[in-house]
Amino acid sequence: MGSLYSFAFGLKFSVIKKKNSMLHCICQQATWFLLTFFFLKLSDGGKVLVIPMDGSHWLSIQPVMERLHHRGHQVIAVVPDANLLIKPSDHYIVKTFAVPYSTEYLKTELQKLGYKVFVHQPFLTRITETLARIRNITMIYLNNCKQLLYNKDLITYLQDSKFNVVVMDPLSPCGQIVAEYLSIPSVFYSRGIPCGLDAEATKCPNPLSYIPKFFTGSTDHMTFNQRVNNVLFGSFQSMVCNLVYSPFEGLIKEFLHRDMTVVELYSQASIWLLRYDFVFEYPRPIMPNMILIGGINCAKEKPLTQEFESILEKSGEDGVVVFSMGSMLSEIQMKKAMEIAKGLGTIPQTVLWRYTGEAPINLANNTKLFNWLPQNDLLAHPKTRAFITHAGSNGIYEGICHGVPMVLIPLFGDQADNAVRIESRGAGIKLDAVKMTSKDLSNALRTVIYDKRYKENIQRLSSLHLDRPVEPLDLAVHWVEFVMRHKGAPHLRPAAHDLNWIQYYSIDVIALLLAATFLFLFISLKSCLFCCKKCFCKSARLSKKSKSKSQ
Amino acid sequence: MGSLYSFAFGLKFSVIKKKNSMLHCICQQATWFLLTFFFLKLSDGGKVLVIPMDGSHWLSIQPVMERLHHRGHQVIAVVPDANLLIKPSDHYIVKTFAVPYSTEYLKTELQKLGYKVFVHQPFLTRITETLARIRNITMIYLNNCKQLLYNKDLITYLQDSKFNVVVMDPLSPCGQIVAEYLSIPSVFYSRGIPCGLDAEATKCPNPLSYIPKFFTGSTDHMTFNQRVNNVLFGSFQSMVCNLVYSPFEGLIKEFLHRDMTVVELYSQASIWLLRYDFVFEYPRPIMPNMILIGGINCAKEKPLTQEFESILEKSGEDGVVVFSMGSMLSEIQMKKAMEIAKGLGTIPQTVLWRYTGEAPINLANNTKLFNWLPQNDLLAHPKTRAFITHAGSNGIYEGICHGVPMVLIPLFGDQADNAVRIESRGAGIKLDAVKMTSKDLSNALRTVIYDKRYKENIQRLSSLHLDRPVEPLDLAVHWVEFVMRHKGAPHLRPAAHDLNWIQYYSIDVIALLLAATFLFLFISLKSCLFCCKKCFCKSARLSKKSKSKSQ
Repeated sequence: MGSLYSFAFGLKFSVIKKKNSMLHCICQQATWFLLTFFFLKLSDGGKVLVIPMDGSHWLSIQPVMERLHHRGHQVIAVVPDANLLIKPSDHYIVKTFAVPYSTEYLKTELQKLGYKVFVHQPFLTRITETLARIRNITMIYLNNCKQLLYNKDLITYLQDSKFNVVVMDPLSPCGQIVAEYLSIPSVFYSRGIPCGLDAEATKCPNPLSYIPKFFTGSTDHMTFNQRVNNVLFGSFQSMVCNLVYSPFEGLIKEFLHRDMTVVELYSQASIWLLRYDFVFEYPRPIMPNMILIGGINCAKEKPLTQEFESILEKSGEDGVVVFSMGSMLSEIQMKKAMEIAKGLGTIPQTVLWRYTGEAPINLANNTKLFNWLPQNDLLAHPKTRAFITHAGSNGIYEGICHGVPMVLIPLFGDQADNAVRIESRGAGIKLDAVKMTSKDLSNALRTVIYDKRYKENIQRLSSLHLDRPVEPLDLAVHWVEFVMRHKGAPHLRPAAHDLNWIQYYSIDVIALLLAATFLFLFISLKSCLFCCKKCFCKSARLSKKSKSKSQ
Repeated sequence: MGSLYSFAFGLKFSVIKKKNSMLHCICQQATWFLLTFFFLKLSDGGKVLVIPMDGSHWLSIQPVMERLHHRGHQVIAVVPDANLLIKPSDHYIVKTFAVPYSTEYLKTELQKLGYKVFVHQPFLTRITETLARIRNITMIYLNNCKQLLYNKDLITYLQDSKFNVVVMDPLSPCGQIVAEYLSIPSVFYSRGIPCGLDAEATKCPNPLSYIPKFFTGSTDHMTFNQRVNNVLFGSFQSMVCNLVYSPFEGLIKEFLHRDMTVVELYSQASIWLLRYDFVFEYPRPIMPNMILIGGINCAKEKPLTQEFESILEKSGEDGVVVFSMGSMLSEIQMKKAMEIAKGLGTIPQTVLWRYTGEAPINLANNTKLFNWLPQNDLLAHPKTRAFITHAGSNGIYEGICHGVPMVLIPLFGDQADNAVRIESRGAGIKLDAVKMTSKDLSNALRTVIYDKRYKENIQRLSSLHLDRPVEPLDLAVHWVEFVMRHKGAPHLRPAAHDLNWIQYYSIDVIALLLAATFLFLFISLKSCLFCCKKCFCKSARLSKKSKSKSQ
């Protein structure tokens, strides 16, 4: 393991990044190395257990699983038998466990959500519904986890398989419970956990003064009011975090026979592979076991099919706009769809819209609907002028990779914050899904396409993002294999894990030093007073004596 | 710039790390790529200004300068004309500026220091002398800096040269003053600044509860007393920091016409290349612009000369012990030298001792003195059983790279802390330079050689250290070139730099929230009291009335 692969990385890096002719020639000659060995099983071969989440989370972890397979490892994914996007593949074995709902149920729930996000709801209703949704998702995760843990055949199979590592999505703690049960080191694969559980579990400092909490919509430059809001929201999120994750603590006790909080459970992770890059995220402290692999999903683009190639060709100088609301949501209410279609019809670009619902009756000639779009490949095409996105982090990284300015219509989750990040960097315009009119959409599209600053800004971000010593996918695979080779990464675990919060913040030390200071001041004051008193008494006695003598 | 080089890195990486036969074959076939292009000037060629420090600091920055030269950049080092180790080379141009002392003076001062560190001095004398030495070194740095900045010819030359980047050692702020004056982005190259200026300047959280301050001799697992000591020592070090660096603030004002503290000056650095690796340093938070390149000095070993090869051959099964007190110190007091020689004579290994002083008369047959040792190459040899070192970080990294257990005799600076780090990991034994007897040395050597745990521990550290996705030298060069390509790395600068300390620690927000809470409690209490009073009065009136009625 961990071998000639680096060579292939380096080669790929140089092929992409340099147009120098001599270099190009050499690269061509060397390409056979890449082609011959890139897909060969070069490593010694270990066993990787993957416990992923569904949806875009699954799509983002897939390349790592495929690469691990190419590296000669056996990759086994354990997933519920009802899911949205998880499909079998030659690259990994999918083991399912039964869950008490169907794929159809998931699709219907998602469709309902899709309709709701475009409709105005009073603030309180929205909050209540969000909390109800969180509770519902928590219960689904919890039940799924129980179904997995108490599936005797599956657990016996996992025990017998002697895995070297568990790669898991920490949105649900289930993977780490399995890792603890099987005594296998784990690698977490995540974009971060919105309520800050990741920072707590890694002991990563998280100053609220310049690190905006998710869902606040703030940037890293906050006004005083925004900072107050950030602190208050931070506390609120901790409560939500507790609401979401505390039910798992019972399960931990039940299954592992240990008293352990979810934070303690998560602190056992050897490595956190975080889909972070500071062209997108705000610069902040990180810990040694956090490996940043933002942009991992922007694989080198594949050639487009004839159909798409011909559309792009026909678009002429105006080019095309790519429009997708992500892997989870592909149809919306007709009223909103018509509003959007009206906006799209006002621009000279051809619009490629991923939409599976009924076609809006006012769809303009420039707008073409597709059940599926090769999003990354389209964004990589030089004719793509703009990208309308729901601001999911995968899509945003693809936009950054290929330097395409964005119109961002966030729907739920971290998407509103993602949109703020891109807007704050002058690389896109954020629209409100509910309030947005066709004119807003049209104006936003025209601005990001014709105001050169948007293109310049996204290209600057792109060049910074792509200028890296190792490709994120290679980095991710290196660290998974590192954990396999060394049975974890304990040398990256800070001693902070062995301190309670009073010790961590040195509150006991500060209390002692303050007490010592006050004691010192008190004794000094008392001594002074005593001396003064003595002197005063003496002088008083002396003056009395002298007075009595003079009398 | 930033091109096919990665390919060469990858190839080198794979050649070193994998012995797989198929791979090996391919590597051989591919070697011509490496050989042909590794030393060719592949990059577009920029201009790099280096403002280094003397001694081991210079030795550690040299490989980066050489590699930058091989990458096609013009590298110019600006150094005082009196120095200890800085020599001209084909790889870089050395520009000197006059200083009012000679190389001979530096050598004499160093010799004096070398004699002193092995002699017992009362605590107070040691402190006074250390402070005096710090003041002296500060004045030398300050005067050197003045000599550089007010050397009109040199400054005109630097201005005309249109450098792309300044690579500097932040032990003295002079390089950053030059960078500011020339408006060039800078890369800091350091192992950290002992008094914590680096953490302050990068806004890197530095919890005193598990990050031991330099010179405390603590590990990352501290007792309560050690934590109290760490906090107190932290404050003391801040004062020392101020003592050392505040004189430069006048110079900044004088030369740059700006009111700027040294912390503010240092916060302008684009990238900090830190000679850090967590097999040696204690895991702690880092910032996005901190790039960890610990072990950069363990270049692939070169073949040994016939002389050394023959000594190693003759040493038989017992092997050899390598003994060096670093690049700065190569002779000590005769009394101590004899004590050491006596200890060395008791072990069956052949000892290779770098020692330029008069040979101790009791030197045993197994001990051979040399004016200079190819330390890294010797440590890489399988016959090397142990390494006696002054615990400088360069030497320690070489010991870790090659998996050689160590006997550590720290002398000054960060060496005592380095020694504690290695000892705490069970990979070496620390001795006290003053109190150490020949028996202590002999026992320590026998223990690290014959107690297998030391070898196992250092080999474990070594395997963790060497298992990395990019070689540290390649990483360092990548980031220097990154700064050249993008004219800095502003996307890695945290927003914390734009906050004052009250804002950073959210003291204003906490004060407001506390005030609001107290106000709320006060109003609630007052309202309650008012209500109670009303109720009480009413009931009192009623009871009075009823009483009067009943009467």
